[in-house]
Amino acid sequence: MELQFLGTSSGTPTRTRNVAGLALRMEGGGWLLVDCGEGTQHRILHTSLSLHTLQAVLITHLHGDHCYGLPGLLASAGMANRTAPLMLVGPPALQSYLGGVMASTELRLPYELTFVAVETLVGRSLVPDLDISATPLSHRVPSWAYRFAERHVERRLDVAKLRAGAVPAGPLWGRLQQGEDVTLPDGRVLRPADYLLPARRPRAIVVAGDNDRPELLADAMRDADVLVHEATYTQAVLEKVGPGPQHSCARMVAAFAAAAGVPNLVLTHFSPRYRDAGTGPATLAEVADEARAQFAGPLFLAADLARYRLDRDGTLHPVSPP
Amino acid sequence: MELQFLGTSSGTPTRTRNVAGLALRMEGGGWLLVDCGEGTQHRILHTSLSLHTLQAVLITHLHGDHCYGLPGLLASAGMANRTAPLMLVGPPALQSYLGGVMASTELRLPYELTFVAVETLVGRSLVPDLDISATPLSHRVPSWAYRFAERHVERRLDVAKLRAGAVPAGPLWGRLQQGEDVTLPDGRVLRPADYLLPARRPRAIVVAGDNDRPELLADAMRDADVLVHEATYTQAVLEKVGPGPQHSCARMVAAFAAAAGVPNLVLTHFSPRYRDAGTGPATLAEVADEARAQFAGPLFLAADLARYRLDRDGTLHPVSPP
Repeated sequence: MELQFLGTSSGTPTRTRNVAGLALRMEGGGWLLVDCGEGTQHRILHTSLSLHTLQAVLITHLHGDHCYGLPGLLASAGMANRTAPLMLVGPPALQSYLGGVMASTELRLPYELTFVAVETLVGRSLVPDLDISATPLSHRVPSWAYRFAERHVERRLDVAKLRAGAVPAGPLWGRLQQGEDVTLPDGRVLRPADYLLPARRPRAIVVAGDNDRPELLADAMRDADVLVHEATYTQAVLEKVGPGPQHSCARMVAAFAAAAGVPNLVLTHFSPRYRDAGTGPATLAEVADEARAQFAGPLFLAADLARYRLDRDGTLHPVSPP
Repeated sequence: MELQFLGTSSGTPTRTRNVAGLALRMEGGGWLLVDCGEGTQHRILHTSLSLHTLQAVLITHLHGDHCYGLPGLLASAGMANRTAPLMLVGPPALQSYLGGVMASTELRLPYELTFVAVETLVGRSLVPDLDISATPLSHRVPSWAYRFAERHVERRLDVAKLRAGAVPAGPLWGRLQQGEDVTLPDGRVLRPADYLLPARRPRAIVVAGDNDRPELLADAMRDADVLVHEATYTQAVLEKVGPGPQHSCARMVAAFAAAAGVPNLVLTHFSPRYRDAGTGPATLAEVADEARAQFAGPLFLAADLARYRLDRDGTLHPVSPP
């Protein structure tokens, strides 16, 4: 599982950071898009992602910096002759937003759109490889976090036990690994459950929309490997701005991550006031320092196009070059 | 008067070309935006243009590649604390498009929007420095060309005549140039009309939306200096694609420009199939060659961020660096 950031700025784009967009790449080559700010399709042109293998777009909330790129991305997928249906998940207003834009701009697509209201996700199977669930957050408009958990976890054979039992190596082992009962030439019947090692925990990633109460994610983060959360400001700026915008500061998110035992924390959605380079006030280094003072685990401040791989053992590490 | 291209691709962005957007910069520092495809605000970040001095946005037609950047641009102007009202000109559907987006995404702006239906432009004064008129074109949806003509032309004094009449040089000359009657110490009353050289022709630029009948611009181009027109394809590609999309090929536009005596021709809105570099089929050089075979005057194929100055004598020339 990989994450690739397509935008990491809050509200407005800067020269180096676009507004929100995040690709979740799966091992089979398909991918999901979480949020689609204006210019997301432009960022995609600088990646190896294809609009033909996009399986679903999930919108966390309907503020412009998270959804104004959707009509153009859908139009471009159409002009690229996409024919596979596309799933759109989000607050119910997503459908009226898109429907209005499509009607007034006469946008007709050569593929089908399926809208899924985020409230109805429970128990649904949207894509073959992942279980997707959602958690309501606290923001000026309804905002959600999406949790993506691997559905299929490969099982490894207990080779020592097979050898101890004198089970002949070869195709029989493979059938056991696939979950089939196997009858040996000597008449013994082997059950897969007896010869498979305990399954590893399925990997899970939580991607949150705008939110001023990180603790709402406590349940979603149980058995999850990665939290991607906004850290729009430092605490000092949040206090200056006031609570009106309902964003988090780095300290709040990192303190929650520490308390909840979050294995890997990725911060994004930075106010354009923070400069990428340098140290001290109004730099991203200041945001990072504030988070590190709370959270001792692996911490990343996302940049546009940055790509992170989540290994099967739960390690998150940057992929270079993106 | 200057033109700066913010996007020159048709339909979808490429790695080097954004979708439609064109800034018309006036001498006082204000500017107008013609079309606002997705990512126009991102391009603006790489120019010296400010969303605070934007006077009006004029949309040629409501296809996505000409208007999907408008909500985000308006939102960013708001987040930059613009307070000056902004005029939006376009087909009537522009208002319902924007109204729908603003309602469903809860976009509230700290400045006023004034919608002007393009059909009602006649006789209206939208901005102080320009007369703006519009011409209906031929496309799949209602599409328009905008004509921008200087309203105020500076007058030069007939210095030889002033000297011959022994009018003392100094502040009196300035008052004559400003259009005031002047009484000399010897009692003579001088009328400005007698001492001003004939006014030069006001400069005029026509920017057309998508259109498959360039000849519709014959009237608008009378006494105009520059035509900016789409040349989506070469003739061979247009014949292959068929007339359905209702675009022009380079040959059609250049042949019209030659017949109409267009002083300067700028082509834009190129199909993404054309590569920027190289020669031969499927390069922009092929598009340029096709146009040059018809039109012998000054011809430019616009690139993103390219900037052109229209001098008072009607000469159009690239400004470098953009």
